[in-house]
Amino acid sequence: MNPSQLAYAVPAAGALALAYAFWKASWVRAQPAGNDKMKEIAGLIQEGAMAFLGREYKVLAVFVAIVAVLLGVANMSGADQSPLIAGAFVLGAFTSGLAGYFGMRIATDANVRTTQAATIGLSQALDVAFSGGAVMGMSVVGLATIGLGGSYIAFSMIFGQDHLATTMSVLTGFSMGASSIALFARVGGGIYTKAADVGADLVGKVEAGLPEDDPRNPAVIADNVGDNVGDVAGMGADLFESYVGAIVGAMVLAMNFQTVQVGGSEAMGPVVLPMLIAAGGILCSIVGTFFVKTREGGNPQLALDLGAFGAAGTMAVATFGLAKLMWPAAGAAVMTGDTVSNLVIQWWQVGVATVVGLGTGVAVGLITSYYCSMGKRPVDSIVEQSRTGTATNIIAGLGVGMQSTAAPILVLAAGVVLSNMAAGLYGVAIAALGMLSTTGIQLAVDAYGPIADNAGGIAEMSHQPAEVRERTDKLDAVGNTTAAIGKGFAIGSAAMTALALFVAFMQQAQISSIDVSKPIVMAGCFIGGMLPFLFSAFAMNAVGEAAMEMITEVRRQFREIPGLLEGTALPDSARCVDISTAAALKKMVVPGAMAIISPVVMGFLFGAEALGGMLAGCTVTGVLLAIFMSNAGGAWDNAKKSFEGEGFKMPDGQFHKKGSPAHQAAVVGDTVGDPFKDTAGPSLNILVKLMSVVALVIGPLLATYKGLFIF
Amino acid sequence: MNPSQLAYAVPAAGALALAYAFWKASWVRAQPAGNDKMKEIAGLIQEGAMAFLGREYKVLAVFVAIVAVLLGVANMSGADQSPLIAGAFVLGAFTSGLAGYFGMRIATDANVRTTQAATIGLSQALDVAFSGGAVMGMSVVGLATIGLGGSYIAFSMIFGQDHLATTMSVLTGFSMGASSIALFARVGGGIYTKAADVGADLVGKVEAGLPEDDPRNPAVIADNVGDNVGDVAGMGADLFESYVGAIVGAMVLAMNFQTVQVGGSEAMGPVVLPMLIAAGGILCSIVGTFFVKTREGGNPQLALDLGAFGAAGTMAVATFGLAKLMWPAAGAAVMTGDTVSNLVIQWWQVGVATVVGLGTGVAVGLITSYYCSMGKRPVDSIVEQSRTGTATNIIAGLGVGMQSTAAPILVLAAGVVLSNMAAGLYGVAIAALGMLSTTGIQLAVDAYGPIADNAGGIAEMSHQPAEVRERTDKLDAVGNTTAAIGKGFAIGSAAMTALALFVAFMQQAQISSIDVSKPIVMAGCFIGGMLPFLFSAFAMNAVGEAAMEMITEVRRQFREIPGLLEGTALPDSARCVDISTAAALKKMVVPGAMAIISPVVMGFLFGAEALGGMLAGCTVTGVLLAIFMSNAGGAWDNAKKSFEGEGFKMPDGQFHKKGSPAHQAAVVGDTVGDPFKDTAGPSLNILVKLMSVVALVIGPLLATYKGLFIF
Repeated sequence: MNPSQLAYAVPAAGALALAYAFWKASWVRAQPAGNDKMKEIAGLIQEGAMAFLGREYKVLAVFVAIVAVLLGVANMSGADQSPLIAGAFVLGAFTSGLAGYFGMRIATDANVRTTQAATIGLSQALDVAFSGGAVMGMSVVGLATIGLGGSYIAFSMIFGQDHLATTMSVLTGFSMGASSIALFARVGGGIYTKAADVGADLVGKVEAGLPEDDPRNPAVIADNVGDNVGDVAGMGADLFESYVGAIVGAMVLAMNFQTVQVGGSEAMGPVVLPMLIAAGGILCSIVGTFFVKTREGGNPQLALDLGAFGAAGTMAVATFGLAKLMWPAAGAAVMTGDTVSNLVIQWWQVGVATVVGLGTGVAVGLITSYYCSMGKRPVDSIVEQSRTGTATNIIAGLGVGMQSTAAPILVLAAGVVLSNMAAGLYGVAIAALGMLSTTGIQLAVDAYGPIADNAGGIAEMSHQPAEVRERTDKLDAVGNTTAAIGKGFAIGSAAMTALALFVAFMQQAQISSIDVSKPIVMAGCFIGGMLPFLFSAFAMNAVGEAAMEMITEVRRQFREIPGLLEGTALPDSARCVDISTAAALKKMVVPGAMAIISPVVMGFLFGAEALGGMLAGCTVTGVLLAIFMSNAGGAWDNAKKSFEGEGFKMPDGQFHKKGSPAHQAAVVGDTVGDPFKDTAGPSLNILVKLMSVVALVIGPLLATYKGLFIF
Repeated sequence: MNPSQLAYAVPAAGALALAYAFWKASWVRAQPAGNDKMKEIAGLIQEGAMAFLGREYKVLAVFVAIVAVLLGVANMSGADQSPLIAGAFVLGAFTSGLAGYFGMRIATDANVRTTQAATIGLSQALDVAFSGGAVMGMSVVGLATIGLGGSYIAFSMIFGQDHLATTMSVLTGFSMGASSIALFARVGGGIYTKAADVGADLVGKVEAGLPEDDPRNPAVIADNVGDNVGDVAGMGADLFESYVGAIVGAMVLAMNFQTVQVGGSEAMGPVVLPMLIAAGGILCSIVGTFFVKTREGGNPQLALDLGAFGAAGTMAVATFGLAKLMWPAAGAAVMTGDTVSNLVIQWWQVGVATVVGLGTGVAVGLITSYYCSMGKRPVDSIVEQSRTGTATNIIAGLGVGMQSTAAPILVLAAGVVLSNMAAGLYGVAIAALGMLSTTGIQLAVDAYGPIADNAGGIAEMSHQPAEVRERTDKLDAVGNTTAAIGKGFAIGSAAMTALALFVAFMQQAQISSIDVSKPIVMAGCFIGGMLPFLFSAFAMNAVGEAAMEMITEVRRQFREIPGLLEGTALPDSARCVDISTAAALKKMVVPGAMAIISPVVMGFLFGAEALGGMLAGCTVTGVLLAIFMSNAGGAWDNAKKSFEGEGFKMPDGQFHKKGSPAHQAAVVGDTVGDPFKDTAGPSLNILVKLMSVVALVIGPLLATYKGLFIF
């Protein structure tokens, strides 16, 4: 079979993933949903979450429509361009949104059923929670491969095999659609969840002394809705975007291979290969999910690791096979302009790039986990500096976060250089894809955490016996290592994909270098470097302001609703849900729009090379700030948790427990860390890729229109 | 007169500056030093400060000796290289250290005499404090121009006019010496002052409820020593470095002009011009100091503005004159490799670049001042968010700091592009120099602040009448606008100088582009971008740990020394001074060494272009983090101060005063901001230039030795 025919395997694998998701979803919904109180609470959470998604999608529909029209008009004429890019853009946005809808729907079904299953046993609860997560994971990879693979096949037919460049240019629109939705979903979800969380914690827990998830706390439903909106839907859109970006980046770079330019069926191999790797990853992920089983008293951690790492490892080996199958037998040489490089890449080198990518991701993940883990030096140093108050706790946390950028960046730099040595810039893109090929099961593990967390909340609010909460807590804690590795994959693949996308942009814009020693490029680099700071500021301010509104409202309810604190009256949860929803929708617009407009303005005013400088600056500071903010937030979180149980043993031998002044300082640190790690940090990974993909989309336009001011 | 003869004017102007400094110093020391109590306190401060400087210089002497030997050996052979660079390096380090010594000696003489003068009147106090600052300012510019101008003349004679490249390469050693000392002085001084400050504030003010500068507080002498060590000596070394860096950067770039390459006396004009601009700036500064006079009841702000801005404005006009005098009559064209650009630069374009530089600096300063000023929206938003506690105060401050990067970066980018349009990359360097040419008087204004601050402390500790403290407070507050503009100049000139230096580096290393789309360059860019984060982490951790030690010691003294809090026993101030000294010296070594070693390792392992990528990444994130940290710190500081007096009127109409919960939250924010704005932030400006200048120094070596691993 020739590579073009093999492309049909891609949507087929996607359909398989969707069928699997449908099967799992039906199974979850067939599980018992507990007593009436549980159903009522779960209903409130589901209602709030779906209402938010509905309102969010309405806002995004307007945005998608406007951008689609602009894209269509701008691509009416020109070589390798087609107005059909507008359709691909809409499709990318739509499939991303649909994946979020499916995933969140089933996650909110699964949470209460996990609570119910936890009344019986740990293994039952694991089954339900993980199945819920698996629906999210498979929906994402299924819709992505169907959308992308289907588009590739359809546009190849429309434009013909000889106009590969047009097909590719249109496919970048799909990627841009996915990335746009992801950014809004991450930012909006992040604002929602942290406004609710900070509000619930500061007034409910600190001021009123209520325990976590106490039903008397008016913000607690909003907090639980936030877990779904931010951690499930937001993360799903995020990984959809990463997955698609890595595939499209590699495909566009594959056009650079000399054999492809020459034509012939074998020559299409490097172009189709990235999609086939994704398809293979789906199969490995599905198989992996069957290993996630545990018995009562068994170790759920082992089950998750076996499933996720087993799938990734198998896929690394399988990549060699797929590369052998698809790669031109004589190898492929890179073209730069009209020059054919004497560097000929063989099939096995593509496999090596995958291994480099996986190694990079695992290393970044382990380092990240070191900086954020209880009992390790960085977190302990924050705990120790909490003794002298909030100020030293904050200074220590910021210091740990900044310091934690060093090792991951060195690993990433090595990963970029090594994967480039293995298979050129195509290798860098493949390395990113290597980390993401088993997204199906990775996302299942990631999404399972918030489901278990929510299940615990429902157990608390519906006054279940303590053992139920203990089981859900155990489940929640267990995914942490796997999630840490997943975080490493997210950071690593973002950096590598961004690099791949921006080299692909150069190809589309027909520029051969981005020379930062030119003043206009350096100026672009400064401005690009500034954008992640400005973006984070928007996110931080949004959380700060929304949290303040939430705090004021919760304080008002405690003051004005008689009997609320005594438990004889119900809080007005809907008001809190409204505050978070309104704040999230209002405040996601400016940072999201900024990400899309900035590259366009820069490109059309100052030309492609200045835009290239902007992308470089944005990628560097974006990745750095993302690592800094995520790790500082994670470290503060665990510094706070170090006081739980029997307390933390300070160097002088004294134990400091929950409620001590040092613990209170640590609670403040954790609150500062919330918008760091759950709003700004993860959004930055999307920001850098979205800006690159916007540049990639307008690249062909910039190739003809050189910029208003030429320097 | 030909340009080479005019070069003699440079050390002559320097000698004039030193004579002026000597005259002012003698005048200050002839002023009455107050009563015995005042002399005793001032003696303790001076002793502590000079002891620190002595111990710091011993550490630095070892460092300088090692680096000098390495530099000498590495430059034993090779075209355009000479082992004499070691001598230039030592001279740069020595003159920088000497300027710090003079300045701090007289500042510690001036503080108590300012207190004494303030018992008489405001104008007398202004006179003494400003004269003290002027000694610092003139010592810096005097020693810099004598050292640099003298070296230029001497090395030109040694190597001959035909070996300009060798002279220039040796002069970069002078710049590296100055920058190395500056980085250590800033970091060491910053750690010293903030450890003492945080310790004195958190235990003395917050826990024990003592007022600022209370003599019962054991850390208060260390705090006052810190003001001198950090704000006077640290800032002096900082500006010495900036001043020298801007001049040397412009001189090296001047070699690129075609007329220079051709030779002839007129051709030397562009090379000598930067030094002559510095010499002209000295004259303007000296004249400016005579305008800084006020009568009792007069406005000292007006006097300072008149002196500083008058000097800068006059100098901008004078630059046109100097350019006309020095520039080749037919203009000068830029060479790129062997190609002569058709862009011919005329004398007046150099003047335009100066004006662009001044405009950029003023704009950055005004924006910075907006983000940090009481009563403006950013600071007010932090104050308002203090109502809901420390966490929201911190989130708001971080948000303001990040947001405040946007406008200055846009201005800077415009400044870079416009000054490049005016006079090429030479124009960018000249723009930086434009901001720094009147460093003599600017530094006088900057250094006058800590002198007045210290005078207030001495007034407090020696129980002077309240009006004395009021006068010194008024003096201290007054320099703020001028200081804000000075901060803008520091940031703006750092970014532009770094850019100039790294283009100069390319010239020395004989590479024609730094293409970030190459993976190895991008890897360099990532690593370079990470270094300011790591550097800041070291600085933050150092302050956090030293402050904790200080807090523990102060708590111990309050507990163990009977009668201390009642005022019947004396604190053990020397212990606190020791803690700060030891911490500063120990913890300045690693970050300082990192800055010097990183470019060397990168360059020799991966070649010049990878090193270029590293410099680009470091410059972008360094400048951004510097703006973020300085402004966040400044905004937190003034958010805290907003509660003073009659309190802050919140949007709901209620007044929150000193001691309210909101104020206490703001105090914590201010403490977090301390290491931001006074340790890490200002050091970053030096870091980016030091790394560039190290690259510039090893540039010629990299031109022949291409790196161990070639990509």
